[in-house]
Amino acid sequence: MTSFPKLLQRMQELKDLYGIIGLATWDQETYLPRKGEPARACQLSSLQGLYHEKLVDPALGELLERAAARPDLTSDEQAMLRVLRWERDRAVRVPPELVRELAAAQSQALPVWREARKLNDFALFCPALERLVRIRREQADALGHGGRRYDALLEGYEPGMRVERLSPVLLGLKEKLVPMVQALCDAPEPHPMASQVFEGKTFNGDRQWRFTQRLLEEMGFDLEAGRQDRSVHPFTGGTHPRDVRLTVRIDEANPMTALFGVIHEGGHGLYEQGYAEEHHRTPLAAAPSMGIHESQSRLWENLVGRSLPFWAHYFPILRAEFPKELGGVEPEAFYCAVNRVTRSLIRIEADEVTYNLHIVLRYELELALLDGELAVADLPGVWNERMQALLGVTPPSDEKGVLQDIHWAWGELGYFPSYTIGNLYSATLYAAAQRDLPGLEERLSRGELSVLTEWLRRRIHRDGHRRYAEEQVRHVAGKGLTDEDFVEYLRRKYEALYGVQLPR
Amino acid sequence: MTSFPKLLQRMQELKDLYGIIGLATWDQETYLPRKGEPARACQLSSLQGLYHEKLVDPALGELLERAAARPDLTSDEQAMLRVLRWERDRAVRVPPELVRELAAAQSQALPVWREARKLNDFALFCPALERLVRIRREQADALGHGGRRYDALLEGYEPGMRVERLSPVLLGLKEKLVPMVQALCDAPEPHPMASQVFEGKTFNGDRQWRFTQRLLEEMGFDLEAGRQDRSVHPFTGGTHPRDVRLTVRIDEANPMTALFGVIHEGGHGLYEQGYAEEHHRTPLAAAPSMGIHESQSRLWENLVGRSLPFWAHYFPILRAEFPKELGGVEPEAFYCAVNRVTRSLIRIEADEVTYNLHIVLRYELELALLDGELAVADLPGVWNERMQALLGVTPPSDEKGVLQDIHWAWGELGYFPSYTIGNLYSATLYAAAQRDLPGLEERLSRGELSVLTEWLRRRIHRDGHRRYAEEQVRHVAGKGLTDEDFVEYLRRKYEALYGVQLPR
Repeated sequence: MTSFPKLLQRMQELKDLYGIIGLATWDQETYLPRKGEPARACQLSSLQGLYHEKLVDPALGELLERAAARPDLTSDEQAMLRVLRWERDRAVRVPPELVRELAAAQSQALPVWREARKLNDFALFCPALERLVRIRREQADALGHGGRRYDALLEGYEPGMRVERLSPVLLGLKEKLVPMVQALCDAPEPHPMASQVFEGKTFNGDRQWRFTQRLLEEMGFDLEAGRQDRSVHPFTGGTHPRDVRLTVRIDEANPMTALFGVIHEGGHGLYEQGYAEEHHRTPLAAAPSMGIHESQSRLWENLVGRSLPFWAHYFPILRAEFPKELGGVEPEAFYCAVNRVTRSLIRIEADEVTYNLHIVLRYELELALLDGELAVADLPGVWNERMQALLGVTPPSDEKGVLQDIHWAWGELGYFPSYTIGNLYSATLYAAAQRDLPGLEERLSRGELSVLTEWLRRRIHRDGHRRYAEEQVRHVAGKGLTDEDFVEYLRRKYEALYGVQLPR
Repeated sequence: MTSFPKLLQRMQELKDLYGIIGLATWDQETYLPRKGEPARACQLSSLQGLYHEKLVDPALGELLERAAARPDLTSDEQAMLRVLRWERDRAVRVPPELVRELAAAQSQALPVWREARKLNDFALFCPALERLVRIRREQADALGHGGRRYDALLEGYEPGMRVERLSPVLLGLKEKLVPMVQALCDAPEPHPMASQVFEGKTFNGDRQWRFTQRLLEEMGFDLEAGRQDRSVHPFTGGTHPRDVRLTVRIDEANPMTALFGVIHEGGHGLYEQGYAEEHHRTPLAAAPSMGIHESQSRLWENLVGRSLPFWAHYFPILRAEFPKELGGVEPEAFYCAVNRVTRSLIRIEADEVTYNLHIVLRYELELALLDGELAVADLPGVWNERMQALLGVTPPSDEKGVLQDIHWAWGELGYFPSYTIGNLYSATLYAAAQRDLPGLEERLSRGELSVLTEWLRRRIHRDGHRRYAEEQVRHVAGKGLTDEDFVEYLRRKYEALYGVQLPR
C-alpha cells in the first residue's frame, strides 16, 4: 500500500500514456504503412501534448507538494516523488510557446538536414541549426542553470551531471586516447586476414535472424515479455517492462551489423525488463540517465560481445550456422576483424578505442555553441580541424563530417556525452562484476551469459530510478564517473591484440 | 477553413486519441508479447479514461454550443457538430460510477464466460450476466429513452434506429426465412461432391496468405495505406483512413476461413480507407452505424464473394494456386460447397440464409431481458426452444447454444441487430449498384472488382458520417431498411442453386 493513492494513480496514468507513446513510436518504425506517416505524426503530437498537459496539471503539483510534506514516506516513495517532481518542474519551466517553437523547428530541420547531407551542403542546413541552437539556449535559460547553459540541457539526459564534473573526465580521457589511437593505427594489422573475413560474402538473413534470437535468449532477454522486429535504424522501445521491443537491421553483406546490434539492444532490453515489479507503472521503472542505460548496451556489445571469452563459445556456433561463409576463417582472424582500430570518420561505425574521441569532439563543439563562443556557420571548419587533431584524419566532405549525425537536426544538444558516460560506466561496472563474480570470463567462455545478467539485474536493473545514475554506479562499484577502468580495459585488451606497448 | 478552429482542434485531438486506442487494440491481438497483456489492459483503460475525460470536458461542451448557434455553418460542419454532440451527450449522461461498474463487470464476466463455455455450465455464467443486464438497464435509463430501454442501447450501435422501426422488419424477415430454410434443408444437396471439396486436405498457409493479399489488392484495398496481419479473431482496425489494419486467421484445413474472412474484412477496410480526405481527423471520418459498416463487409463477402461471377474469375486462379488440392474439383462443386444451407447451430458458422434467424433469436431475447420479461436464468431453455422453432434444431449443449457468443459477456446488449441490418442494407445497396452499373456481374466475372469499389466509394464511403445510416442508404438506393432486396436475392440465388421453388 502506498501512502499516496491518488498520486500513485496519476503516476500510473502518466506511465501508461508514456508506454503508449512508446508503442506508437515503435509502430512508426516497424509496421506503419507508408501513407499513414503524416497521420502518425499528428497522433504522436496529440499524445505528447496530452502527456505534457497531464504533467503540468496544477492538481498534480498540489498532490506532489502535499505528499512531499508527509513525514512517513518510504525511501521508494521519496524517490518516486523526486523523479516526478524533477520531470514536472522541467516541464513547467519551459513556456508552451517555446515547446511549440522547438517542435516546429525540429520538424522543419529534419528534412533540411537530410537534403543537406545528401547534397553535402552545410550552408543549406546552417539556418535551421542556428534556429535550433537559439531555441535550445532560450530553453536552457527557461530551465535555469548556475551560469552554464549546457548544464540545463545535460540535466535532461544525465540528471545530476554538470559540466564542471564532466569536462575534466572527458578531457582526461581525450589526453589518453589520442596517443593510444596513434600507436594502434601505426602498428601493423594484428592478423593478415582480419580485413577479409566478411568481404564479398553473403550471409543469409533468416539464419542471421535465428542466430540473433538465440543470442537474445541466452543473454536472458525474455521473448514472452518482449519481442524483436526489423527496422532501418535499430532501437529499443516498448510499452512496459513486460513489453520491451527491440529492433534489428539485417545486412546480408555483413552479419556483424545484426549481431552487435542485437547484443547492444539486448543490453538495453535487459535493463528495461529488469525493473523491480513493485515499481512497474511508477516513475521508478526507468533508468536514471541515458548514460547508465547506454552502459548496459555497451557492456554487452563491447566488454562481452567483442571479447575473447564470448567468441570462444560463439564463434564455433556462428561458423556452424554459416559453414560456407566462415568455414575457412580462423577464430583469431575473426576476433581481430571485430576489434580493428582505425582512424574512423563516422561515429556510429567507430571502434571502441576511437569512439569516445568522436564524442569529445561533439561535446566541445556543443559547449562552444551554447556558450556563444562558436558560430554555427563556423562548425564545418572547426570540425575538420579537430578531427585532424584528435584522430589524425580530415573528413573528405561535410557529409562524412559535421553533417553525419541526426542529433543536432533533432535539436538534441547535450545528448552526446551520454554515449561516453555509458562507455565509462560500462567498464567500471564490468570491473565490479569481475570482482564480485570470480571466474566470470571462464563462465562466459562456456556460454553462461546468464551469470552476468543475474548480477546486472540484482545490482543495477532492479533499482531503476531509485538513485541518480552516478550514485548507482558508486553504490555498485565503489566509484562514480571515471575513465580509469575504461582506459585500463582498452590498454590490456589492445596491447594483447596488437602486441604493442601503449603509452601511459 | 473551418468556422470553428478551436473546436476542430478538439475534434482532431479526440480522433487522434481514438486512433491510438485502435493501435493499442490491434497490437493486443497481433504482436503484444504474452506477458505484456495485463499492462496493456491498464494502458487501454487509461487511454479510454482520457478519451472520456476529453469528451465530457465542459469546455468542449461550451465550444459545441457556441458553434451550434452560428448561422453560417456549412452542412459538413453541421454534421460534425451533430455527431460529436451525440457522442458527448451520451457520455455525459451516464454517471462515472456506472461506467466504472460496467467496466468492472465486463472484466469479471469475460473469464467466467470462457470457463462456463468450456465447462458447458450456464449456471456459472448466470450471476455475471444478471449483473451486466442490470447495469445495462440502468445505463439505458441514464441515457434516456421514450419508454423502451432497448432503444437507448440500440442507439449506441445504430444511431437513429428504434425498436418500433426495427421489429416489424426483423419479424417480417423471420416469417419469410423459416419456411425458406425448411425447404432448402429438406431439398437434396445440390451437388454430390459439395461436402467433400476441402475434406482431408491441407492448404499451405503461405499460399493462402499470398492469395488473400492478391484479393485485397484487386478489391482496391491500398496496402500502402493499410496492412494485413494474422490474429486468432479476425477484425478490422487501425488508426486513420491511411492506416487501416485487417487481420486474418489462416486455417490450413480449410482455406475458406481466410478467404471469406479477408473478403469480409476487406469490405470493412475499403470503407475505412474511403472517407473523404477533407473529413480526416473529424467526426465525419467514420461510418454512421455498425450496421452500415457491416453492410460493406457482407456485400463483399456474400453478394460478391459467394457469387457465380466472382468464382467464374477466381476459381481458376485459386485452383492454380492449389493444383494438387483442387485440381479435381469442378467449379460447380466448389460453388455449392461455399453456399451450402444447413440447420446451423453456431451463428458465426451459419450460411447466409440461416444467419439472420440467429440474430432474430438474440434480438428477441435481448428485448425480453431488457423489458424484464425474461429472467437470465431462463435463457438456456428459451434459447433451445426458439432454436427448434426457428431452425428446426435443438443445441446439444449450452456451449453450442446460449453460451456461444462473447457479446453478452462484454455487456454488448443491442449490438446483434446490426448484423442483420448490415445484411439487409448490403442487398439493397447491391441492387442499387446493379441498377447504376449495367453489366456489373459481367465485369465482376472478368475480375474487375474495382468497378464496384469505385461505386461504393462514391456513393457510401466518401460520405462517412454525414448522414444517418438509413438516410444514407435511402439516399443511394431510394429506400431504407427493408428485407425486400435481401429476400429477393436469396430466392433467386437459392432457387437456382437448389433447383427448388421457394415459398413466397
